Amino acid sequence: MSKFFSKKYASLKPYTPGEQPKGRKYIKLNTNESPFPPPSAVTKAVKQASKSLHLYSDPDNTELVNLVAEKWGVKPCEVIATNGSDEVLNFAFMAFCDGDTPAAFPDITYGFYAVFADLHGDPYQAIPLKEDFSIDPKDYMGVGKTVFIANPNAPTGLHLSVAQIEEILRSNPDNVVVIDEAYVDFGGESCVPLIYKYDNLLVTQTFSKSRSLAGGRLGLGFGCAKLIADLQALRYSTNPYNVNKMTESAGVAALKSEEYYQKNVQTIIKNREYTKKALRKLGFTVLESKTNFLFIKTAKVDGFKLYEELKARGVLVRHFKGERTGAYNRVTIGTKAQTDAFLACVKEILKENEV
Amino acid sequence: MSKFFSKKYASLKPYTPGEQPKGRKYIKLNTNESPFPPPSAVTKAVKQASKSLHLYSDPDNTELVNLVAEKWGVKPCEVIATNGSDEVLNFAFMAFCDGDTPAAFPDITYGFYAVFADLHGDPYQAIPLKEDFSIDPKDYMGVGKTVFIANPNAPTGLHLSVAQIEEILRSNPDNVVVIDEAYVDFGGESCVPLIYKYDNLLVTQTFSKSRSLAGGRLGLGFGCAKLIADLQALRYSTNPYNVNKMTESAGVAALKSEEYYQKNVQTIIKNREYTKKALRKLGFTVLESKTNFLFIKTAKVDGFKLYEELKARGVLVRHFKGERTGAYNRVTIGTKAQTDAFLACVKEILKENEV
Repeated sequence: MSKFFSKKYASLKPYTPGEQPKGRKYIKLNTNESPFPPPSAVTKAVKQASKSLHLYSDPDNTELVNLVAEKWGVKPCEVIATNGSDEVLNFAFMAFCDGDTPAAFPDITYGFYAVFADLHGDPYQAIPLKEDFSIDPKDYMGVGKTVFIANPNAPTGLHLSVAQIEEILRSNPDNVVVIDEAYVDFGGESCVPLIYKYDNLLVTQTFSKSRSLAGGRLGLGFGCAKLIADLQALRYSTNPYNVNKMTESAGVAALKSEEYYQKNVQTIIKNREYTKKALRKLGFTVLESKTNFLFIKTAKVDGFKLYEELKARGVLVRHFKGERTGAYNRVTIGTKAQTDAFLACVKEILKENEV
Repeated sequence: MSKFFSKKYASLKPYTPGEQPKGRKYIKLNTNESPFPPPSAVTKAVKQASKSLHLYSDPDNTELVNLVAEKWGVKPCEVIATNGSDEVLNFAFMAFCDGDTPAAFPDITYGFYAVFADLHGDPYQAIPLKEDFSIDPKDYMGVGKTVFIANPNAPTGLHLSVAQIEEILRSNPDNVVVIDEAYVDFGGESCVPLIYKYDNLLVTQTFSKSRSLAGGRLGLGFGCAKLIADLQALRYSTNPYNVNKMTESAGVAALKSEEYYQKNVQTIIKNREYTKKALRKLGFTVLESKTNFLFIKTAKVDGFKLYEELKARGVLVRHFKGERTGAYNRVTIGTKAQTDAFLACVKEILKENEV
């Protein structure tokens, strides 16, 4: 830290993204990417866009936003496109939290929420998950704070029903409730249609998971026109060209390739159920999951040790230190071949660690 | 504005980017883009990158940052890559300004500085340019604030010498001085080598102008390792994947195509001098410029009227309202053909407005 760095960041702890290994080739099951590359329509669209990179992109992302509006059945003024969903989440912390309006989110959830709150000096309440790692909607009823809920939640994979989210929305009419649907396409139920019922609802989604665009950075926010206008004001006050020309084109092409993604999502769901069954057969505790990952533990090997032993064998999973999460690992669901390689390593490790 | 929007933004006035017309085809001389498309090496690199968009980019942008370090003769830890230079400027306002440390910048300069300051609630002093639109370095000597100077300045095109910048750096040892070199490649002199002499210097650059990547969003910051570490902490607390995979690849390919860009820059400088001469012959006041634009006025036609009449003829230039800027227009230097089309329209307009 330099002597010039503002004191307001004295205790800032930046987010730690999952390892992105540069040397050795790993089977990467640690950052919830899709194992399937984008379709050729995306590659073509990006190449075309790259020919006119000397010109700025459309700061309104008109083509993309109009297509999103059409596909999701909302109006363009109810959509914002961002540089990954991290950016729309950051804008939400800026817009809807401050010294007078703290944030509230689960104690075990996407680690970036706490970083955003700290960054902007927003006080927050981290509400413990229940013993079984589920979110108790009652904890958020009338909480009088800006609520952030990943639904399904990460790294647990558990989800709340739309009816449960509605209770939270209804009981907090004076506060925004942000539902982060990064993983919704893998079996969850989206709250986007509720934006017509609740003016305090912001739903965020991403193209990084089900749409194979993690490296392209495209996120979306949905809400009533006034909420979205607030976020647009922040976007135009930080980086109006946040979604670049290549990303916009990739997003448009992706939305026109829904069949391809649907097929991939079905494959991932199938592999998830297969992996879950196989792990349970090996004695693992595996939380139910509506996502493209599983949260798993075994009494036979310590969580961090399992992570390390897998890494030594060329398989990367994600381990989160912490009292309640330390025994677990979060394992992204890959292709059948990746999953089988992972399971083979797990069996080997269990065997070596037999008493 | 929704009822949920934080009061801290009550008076926020977002930045207004230059028009990005969607319908009619214009000769676009309004946002200082390069008239030359990126070289085929960029197109190829982007296409290649687009094939693995399902995987996250390297959050450290190692390949790009190492190459930048090599080309600029600095160390990787003295470089930060951002989503356009707007992002590194935003980080600089966050990092180095606050309630106790106001910002200081010219009253006529890149309009985003005031927006960033307002966004973060940083007080600022807008220091008037001299009568001839130049910056008086004396105004910044020992000013005791975080200084932001676009060098060359926009929309004037005028620049300070490195010796003058050094005086400002030397007299403000307890404050960061940010030198925004968006236009430096068109004849200015870079302060990057000074980062070894002054620990309070941050230099920002962009790939949007001389490197034909406005639509790709790539900016750079240079400073001593501690300053850059501060900015990295903010980057990792907002959006660690800010520079996406396609942008990083485009940047790397661009840096390997320096000859192409050098040629383009020389052409633009030649066209600039040609346009300046032609306009002066038509009686225009044209400020000296070390950029890819000219700041011009004529006693014969009002500034806004000239902008409108050019637009009606299919030529977009940029007009900035304001007491001192209203008589002027900022005209991007395009190809010879674009410049000639612009000059032909100007002649027509002058003729029609003859008394």
